Amino acid sequence: MNIIEGGVNAAKGFVSSGVYAGLKKAKKDMALIYSEEGCVVAGTFTTNKVKAAPVVYDQEIVRSGALVHAVVVNSKNANACTGERGYKDCIESASELAKALGVKQEECLVASTGVIGVPLPMDTIKKGIGLLCSSLSSSIEAADAAANAICTTDTCKKEIAVSFTVDGKECHMGGMAKGAGMIHPNMATTLSFITTDAKIEKNTLQKLLGSTVEDTFNMISVDGDTSTNDTCLVLANGMAGNKEITFDSTSDLDSFKEALDYVLSYLAKELVRDGEGATRFMEVKVENARTKHDARVLARSIVSSNLFKAALFGSDANWGRVLCAMGYSGADFNPEKVELSFASCKGEIKVLENGMPIEFSEDKAKEILLEKSISVIAKCGDGSSSATAWGCDLTYDYVKINGDYRS
Amino acid sequence: MNIIEGGVNAAKGFVSSGVYAGLKKAKKDMALIYSEEGCVVAGTFTTNKVKAAPVVYDQEIVRSGALVHAVVVNSKNANACTGERGYKDCIESASELAKALGVKQEECLVASTGVIGVPLPMDTIKKGIGLLCSSLSSSIEAADAAANAICTTDTCKKEIAVSFTVDGKECHMGGMAKGAGMIHPNMATTLSFITTDAKIEKNTLQKLLGSTVEDTFNMISVDGDTSTNDTCLVLANGMAGNKEITFDSTSDLDSFKEALDYVLSYLAKELVRDGEGATRFMEVKVENARTKHDARVLARSIVSSNLFKAALFGSDANWGRVLCAMGYSGADFNPEKVELSFASCKGEIKVLENGMPIEFSEDKAKEILLEKSISVIAKCGDGSSSATAWGCDLTYDYVKINGDYRS
Repeated sequence: MNIIEGGVNAAKGFVSSGVYAGLKKAKKDMALIYSEEGCVVAGTFTTNKVKAAPVVYDQEIVRSGALVHAVVVNSKNANACTGERGYKDCIESASELAKALGVKQEECLVASTGVIGVPLPMDTIKKGIGLLCSSLSSSIEAADAAANAICTTDTCKKEIAVSFTVDGKECHMGGMAKGAGMIHPNMATTLSFITTDAKIEKNTLQKLLGSTVEDTFNMISVDGDTSTNDTCLVLANGMAGNKEITFDSTSDLDSFKEALDYVLSYLAKELVRDGEGATRFMEVKVENARTKHDARVLARSIVSSNLFKAALFGSDANWGRVLCAMGYSGADFNPEKVELSFASCKGEIKVLENGMPIEFSEDKAKEILLEKSISVIAKCGDGSSSATAWGCDLTYDYVKINGDYRS
Repeated sequence: MNIIEGGVNAAKGFVSSGVYAGLKKAKKDMALIYSEEGCVVAGTFTTNKVKAAPVVYDQEIVRSGALVHAVVVNSKNANACTGERGYKDCIESASELAKALGVKQEECLVASTGVIGVPLPMDTIKKGIGLLCSSLSSSIEAADAAANAICTTDTCKKEIAVSFTVDGKECHMGGMAKGAGMIHPNMATTLSFITTDAKIEKNTLQKLLGSTVEDTFNMISVDGDTSTNDTCLVLANGMAGNKEITFDSTSDLDSFKEALDYVLSYLAKELVRDGEGATRFMEVKVENARTKHDARVLARSIVSSNLFKAALFGSDANWGRVLCAMGYSGADFNPEKVELSFASCKGEIKVLENGMPIEFSEDKAKEILLEKSISVIAKCGDGSSSATAWGCDLTYDYVKINGDYRS
């Protein structure tokens, strides 16, 4: 597997665009991905009981098994809590797009992110769809424009692409995603779009996506709030010409899985690295836990603790808050067996052994924790399961960004 | 029931003290409550798997059924993650106290709050116990001193007392509590000590305390972190001379319950009002929910949402975040039936009806939300159950206080 350029345009047959339609004040606000061949599609969606209209619309299309040609996204208006009108606006957007692309409405997906509770300004959306269709391109720049156009409070775009081999054929997979708040484990907590030219059977793709999301997007947290709009879509158009991947094609499946895992992990980590107000990135590894479930719950609890996140902002080796967050997680573990270390490019320092603090140099700990990228390693001494979660610190700027988001 | 002065000294036979023992730099750091008569005692404790030594010690004594004479508290050192030594230090503290008071070690409770993972400096603790015993007094000032001495990052003491009638006898109940971080539903999330001269049967007291804590301390949140040291103790010495209250004495039980509910509610609300960095207090009322459980889960989810807490700091009527927090709570409700209002002493404004936003004056909403004490009222339209939770906003100062707590 190799890392390549091109984002969502890296896979054969995909083109994209990102434009300023006039929803935001002066930033790109709409994006489009289009594949000439119809795509097998898989999706995971928010578990929030309050689902935005585009989530409901896309879920139906993903379930229907229809091949899909396009996804249109706006990054200003979540189209959530907009009732029947919100759903009608999804259909109208998809119809407008279908007409312009010469495909069917049910072959077009829609996604939204931004402010909740305001109906879509359909005139602007339609204008945007026209602009998007006339700007479609297979260039790297077009993929970049699309990745930029889906951002809200993100400070930078998130995109990645890889090449890999299946059945002797070179395949490609690209992805883009946006954060940066309302991010918490329980399905993707964000918008992300993955394109691939590999040929893969629909149920296989859906199952693979589900299990990969569990270990990637569902292991990140910025603020503990699960959004109404979370959507992760994978479009596979089969243009690489490989023999269709199914659950029976073991080695092909492994290559595809490796690529998907890399792309989703990369995007998930980029999301928290750019979490609202974040100054530090943290990776929490829980090892030797009794079960995979316990490992996941422990890692997610540490990464979500406001108190530890604030300590991280202050580069404070406050291991008590780590152990405390493990304790209230609900996971099964023995506090008296826990070993805890902090690490960064400046080295590693052990602070806890058998659940008890050990002597350590506060100066060395400070040096390690002043870095931008920090690892927290918690060994449970209880078993052989492990899990990794990713998060960021809690800062003044998080509060500032969210104190007056709607204006 | 009348509100009276005197805090934990309001009840007959209780004396207290608060002193500077030398644990902190220059603030009172140890407190003592003593009753000449042995007390029936009830307690609720943290659900965190990592329990501080004094929690383990007190749980054993509460379970044993022993009558209790005293509680000694230090507010600098949590005595958590201190292993066997931590537990031995509890016994040694209790023994030292017992000797000074002329009672037995197992009649003395201990409580700690503060930094995790540092062994108790026993010389200073013993010196403090001596000072506390020689300062015991029934005065209002002594109760105030005790209430001040249990504080950590609190900006003010929290105490209250009431009088009430049971079996024709005047009874008294007083309480003190400390916050101000690591506060989140799941047992008491704080230290609190209640004294009463009412005579009440032990199991009755324990059950009453459990159910009252559910609706008071367990309905508050500052930061979502459940502490290792949470403890709520009620000491009842029976000196009011009433006939013992049991589950069979209906009207007497109601009077006692009303007093306990008032004292715990008052302290719980004071805790979040003084939450770390808080500038605004919020009361979240969920009404017309399907079940009491759903109402409680919904209210707790709203009050705990970082995003809504940050919006509250900015006086932003961001109802989308309220609905979003209801949606990911896991409670059973129909988003399309929700009605939402914000209120304060400046009036009430409805912002959502049948799950959809309605036109409202942003100016009026701002005027309401600029107040220090805000109500959020969510009507589910699903049933007849209700619950109330209390919390505070998320501010720059929360981050500042917790960025470097240990130093």
